[in-house]
Amino acid sequence: MDGTGYRIEPIGVIRSTLVDRKAAPRQGYEDAPEAWLELAPRVAAGLAGLTAGDEVIVLTWLHRAQRDVLQVHPRGNLEAPLTGVFATRSPDRPNPVGLHRVSVLDVAGLRVRVAPMEAIDGTPIVDIKPVLPRSADS
Amino acid sequence: MDGTGYRIEPIGVIRSTLVDRKAAPRQGYEDAPEAWLELAPRVAAGLAGLTAGDEVIVLTWLHRAQRDVLQVHPRGNLEAPLTGVFATRSPDRPNPVGLHRVSVLDVAGLRVRVAPMEAIDGTPIVDIKPVLPRSADS
Repeated sequence: MDGTGYRIEPIGVIRSTLVDRKAAPRQGYEDAPEAWLELAPRVAAGLAGLTAGDEVIVLTWLHRAQRDVLQVHPRGNLEAPLTGVFATRSPDRPNPVGLHRVSVLDVAGLRVRVAPMEAIDGTPIVDIKPVLPRSADS
Repeated sequence: MDGTGYRIEPIGVIRSTLVDRKAAPRQGYEDAPEAWLELAPRVAAGLAGLTAGDEVIVLTWLHRAQRDVLQVHPRGNLEAPLTGVFATRSPDRPNPVGLHRVSVLDVAGLRVRVAPMEAIDGTPIVDIKPVLPRSADS
């Protein structure tokens, strides 16, 4: 496969009242608000079967992240020991894909209302997947 | 941001006894085997703090997937209605990122043994994230 195969083509964008990375909750369950997933017209057919009440995983591209960071102080606590990013949920990591478990509240054409969503307004969307009923994940 | 920001740089590769996509289980919980995550030396520092017993999400790049597919018959069952890929776990989808919840069995230098893993040998690894203790996901 040539290198072009590894390029993310965003399928849409997050529309949220959150605009500042510093003000955003670190995780969805930390009082994150509702948000809209605004999908691109070219992927509209991919939404067939998605309905209010579904539990889904939204993958995003954390476009403000630093990709050259390999260790962080968890949750920005400088007294916590430096930890490898693969043992944390830091947005700063080599491939800054965000993972958000949300409930679908509404599907209206190309717009999907979800909660809770800690990603900021303008964050590109990579994928949407159903939570599997037979596993605890994700 | 210019377009280069959306390029996945694989952090490693799956080493597995599974070599054939057709023979691979559809999901990890369907009798998928153990596998090794073989990490690239440049990301070694990112593993600090990852230990046997951890529950993690591995994101992969499903390099054999078809990216122009928007609807599928779930689980290949032609009698099931066509469904949007965002309402299924089909590997064929616009951005073929695989999501695998696994247990860490062993960490040996740049190699991490995990189970269960349904991705085939040679699948590029995108990211590793801890399962969050406070949420049901992922």
